[in-house]
Amino acid sequence: MSTIVNAFREADLKAVINKIKPADDRAVELATKRQDALVKPPGSLGKLEEASIKLAGITGKVNNEIKKARIVVMCADNGVCEEGIGSAPISVTAAQAVNMNKAITGMSSIAKAFGSEIRVVDVGIATPYECDDVIKRVVRKGTRNLAKEPALTRAEVIKAISVGLEMAKKAKQEGVDVLGTGEMGIGNTTTSSAILSVLTGLSVEEVTGRGGGITDSNFLKKKQIIEQAIAMHKPNPDDVLDVMAKVGGLDIAGMCGVFLGAARERIPVVIDGFISVVSALCAYRLCPAVRDYLFPSHASYEIGYSAAIKELGLAPYFALDMRLGEGSGCPLTFAVLHAACAVMNGMETFAGAEINDDYLEEIREKDSYT
Amino acid sequence: MSTIVNAFREADLKAVINKIKPADDRAVELATKRQDALVKPPGSLGKLEEASIKLAGITGKVNNEIKKARIVVMCADNGVCEEGIGSAPISVTAAQAVNMNKAITGMSSIAKAFGSEIRVVDVGIATPYECDDVIKRVVRKGTRNLAKEPALTRAEVIKAISVGLEMAKKAKQEGVDVLGTGEMGIGNTTTSSAILSVLTGLSVEEVTGRGGGITDSNFLKKKQIIEQAIAMHKPNPDDVLDVMAKVGGLDIAGMCGVFLGAARERIPVVIDGFISVVSALCAYRLCPAVRDYLFPSHASYEIGYSAAIKELGLAPYFALDMRLGEGSGCPLTFAVLHAACAVMNGMETFAGAEINDDYLEEIREKDSYT
Repeated sequence: MSTIVNAFREADLKAVINKIKPADDRAVELATKRQDALVKPPGSLGKLEEASIKLAGITGKVNNEIKKARIVVMCADNGVCEEGIGSAPISVTAAQAVNMNKAITGMSSIAKAFGSEIRVVDVGIATPYECDDVIKRVVRKGTRNLAKEPALTRAEVIKAISVGLEMAKKAKQEGVDVLGTGEMGIGNTTTSSAILSVLTGLSVEEVTGRGGGITDSNFLKKKQIIEQAIAMHKPNPDDVLDVMAKVGGLDIAGMCGVFLGAARERIPVVIDGFISVVSALCAYRLCPAVRDYLFPSHASYEIGYSAAIKELGLAPYFALDMRLGEGSGCPLTFAVLHAACAVMNGMETFAGAEINDDYLEEIREKDSYT
Repeated sequence: MSTIVNAFREADLKAVINKIKPADDRAVELATKRQDALVKPPGSLGKLEEASIKLAGITGKVNNEIKKARIVVMCADNGVCEEGIGSAPISVTAAQAVNMNKAITGMSSIAKAFGSEIRVVDVGIATPYECDDVIKRVVRKGTRNLAKEPALTRAEVIKAISVGLEMAKKAKQEGVDVLGTGEMGIGNTTTSSAILSVLTGLSVEEVTGRGGGITDSNFLKKKQIIEQAIAMHKPNPDDVLDVMAKVGGLDIAGMCGVFLGAARERIPVVIDGFISVVSALCAYRLCPAVRDYLFPSHASYEIGYSAAIKELGLAPYFALDMRLGEGSGCPLTFAVLHAACAVMNGMETFAGAEINDDYLEEIREKDSYT
C-alpha cells in the first residue's frame, strides 16, 4: 500500500533521457542483409520484415524472440470528470483496475489467452477499492479539475513518469522481451485530446472525439472545456512536462514513463489506442530517439489517433475498429512481432533452400517470384 | 504417390453445394446478446466482437475455441508461364512446395511459430521433385497455356475442387477448429486477374498487378495475354466452372474446393492474399452461403485484392504490406480469432464485474465509458 518512496526530480529525468540511445545501426544493417537473403521476393513480407529489423536495432541482435510479453496498465482518475462530461462514473476506473487482475476485462481476457503478463498500476485512482494485485504508486488520488486549475504540478508529472520508468526497469530485470502499454481512467480522452491539440497545434475540433458515446451536448461541452483550459493555463507546447501538468493526467504521464523507460532499457514497446499514442508522442517529444523503440497496434476509432500516430512516423498494423483501450491492442501486436521473429529466425536463404544462384540474381532484379 | 482415386462429377459438386447451409441464426442471436452484456461499451471491441459472433453462427455454439488451426496450401503450375511473363522459373513451385514442409518458407516458418499445422497439396506441379510430405492429388502436371487454349477442361476443374473438399472433410474428421488457405504456383497472379476480370466485369487493367516485380514490358504483355485469352475463350461470367477452366489454375480450383468444403463441414476458413481471395470469390459465386464461413486476413498489395474482398463484403484485418502468398496471412488471423474467442469466453458481464445496474443502463445509452 505504498506511495512513491523516492524523490525523483527533473534533473533525474533529464539524466535518464540522456542515457537513451537510438537504434543500433550495425544490427539494423545486418538484419536488413539477412532479410534480403531469405527465400522470398525482397520486401514481400512488408511490415513483418520491417519489424524484425527494428527489433534488431533495439536489442543489438539479428535474431530475437518474443517469449515474455507484459502489458503495463496505468490507472488514474481525472478531476475534470466533475464537469459531467465523462461517459461513466469515476468509480469505474477502480472497478476495472480490480477486474483486470481477474482477467475478466477486454484486454485482460485477451492477454490471458495469449500468455501475456499484465501489471496494473494505480498512479492516481480516486475511489477506494480493495485489491492486493494492483501495484500502488499513487501520486495523488485523481488530478485537479483542469476546467478550473492546472491538473497537476510539474513535480507530480515527473513522479508519475518515474513510476513508468520503474516498471520498465523491473521488466528488464525480469527478462521481459516486449512491453505493451494500457490505461484505465474515466475522462482520459479529454486530457489526451487537450495534450494532442497543444503539442501538434491542431484545433481541439480536429483532435477531439466522443470517447465512445457521450451525448451531443456533452460532446460540445467537452470541446469547450478543452479549449477554455488551454486558453486559461497556456501550456507551453515546447515544454511537454508543462503540457502534461496543465491539461494532462497521471495515466498519460505514467505511460510516457513506460515509453521512456523501455527505450532506456532497450525493450520494444507497443502503443495501444488513443491515450497510449498521445503518451508516446509526449515521450517522443521529450526524447526523439524513443521512436526507435515504438511499435503500433490497432487503428483506434478515436479521431485524434491518426494525427498522433502520423507524428510518430508510424502506421497501425490492424484495422479492427477497436476503441476499448486498456491495452487491448497489445497482445495481437505481440503476435505480429512473434511472426516477424519467426520469419527472421526460421526462413532459409536462397542458397539453403536449394533455389539456384542464377535465380537469386534474377529474383533480386525483378523483386518477385509470384 | 496417388493421383485422385474416385471420379467426382459436376452432379456430385452440386450435391455438396446443396448441403451447404448459412449461419445458424439462433447462435448468432445468442452470441450477439452475450457480447452486448460483456463489461465494455457495446461495439468497442469492433471486429473481435463480430468475429466471435460469426464463429458462433458457424459452429452453432456461443463459446468457441481456436486450438487446432491448419493451413491447406494448393500447389500447381500454369502453362501460361511458357509466355515468359512469370517472374521466376516454374521450378520454384516444386522447390517451395518441398521447402514448406521443412518450415523454411515465409508462411511455414510463421505457421510453425504459431503452432499451426500445414498440409501442402500437389494438385498440378509440373517439375519433378522428391518429398513424401507433399500430399499428391495431381489433376494434371500444370495447366495448358491459356494464351493458346483453355487452361483446363471443366472435368479437371471439378476434380481439383474435389481435392479441396477432401481436405476440408479430413480437417473436420481430425478436429480442426479453423482452416487457412494458401497457394504456390508461378504465374498464378495472371490466372487470378483473368478470373477476377471475368467475374466482376472490371477491366483487366483494373485487376492486374505486377505480381511482385516483373518488368514494364512483361507487365504490358501479361495484361495483353489476359485480355486476349478472355477474348479468345469467351468464359461465361455466370458459369464459374467455365471461367476457372478457361483462364484459371488448379491451385485456384483447389482452394475454391477448400472454401466450399469448409462451409459444408461448418469450419471457419481464412482468406489469405490475392489468389486466395479470387478463389473465395469463385466459391461464393458457386454458393453465396459460403460467405458466412469466410474470414479475411491481410490487405494484399496486389491491385485486384480490394475489388475481390469488397465483392465478398469483407475488409482485411491487417495492413502489413504483405504480398508473399503461400497462406502467410493465416496464422495472424488465427490469432485474431483466438482473441475474439478470449473476449467471448473470458470477459465478465456487467453484473459479474460488480459494476452496478444503474450504470449498466447508462453505459448502454451512451455507448462508452471512456
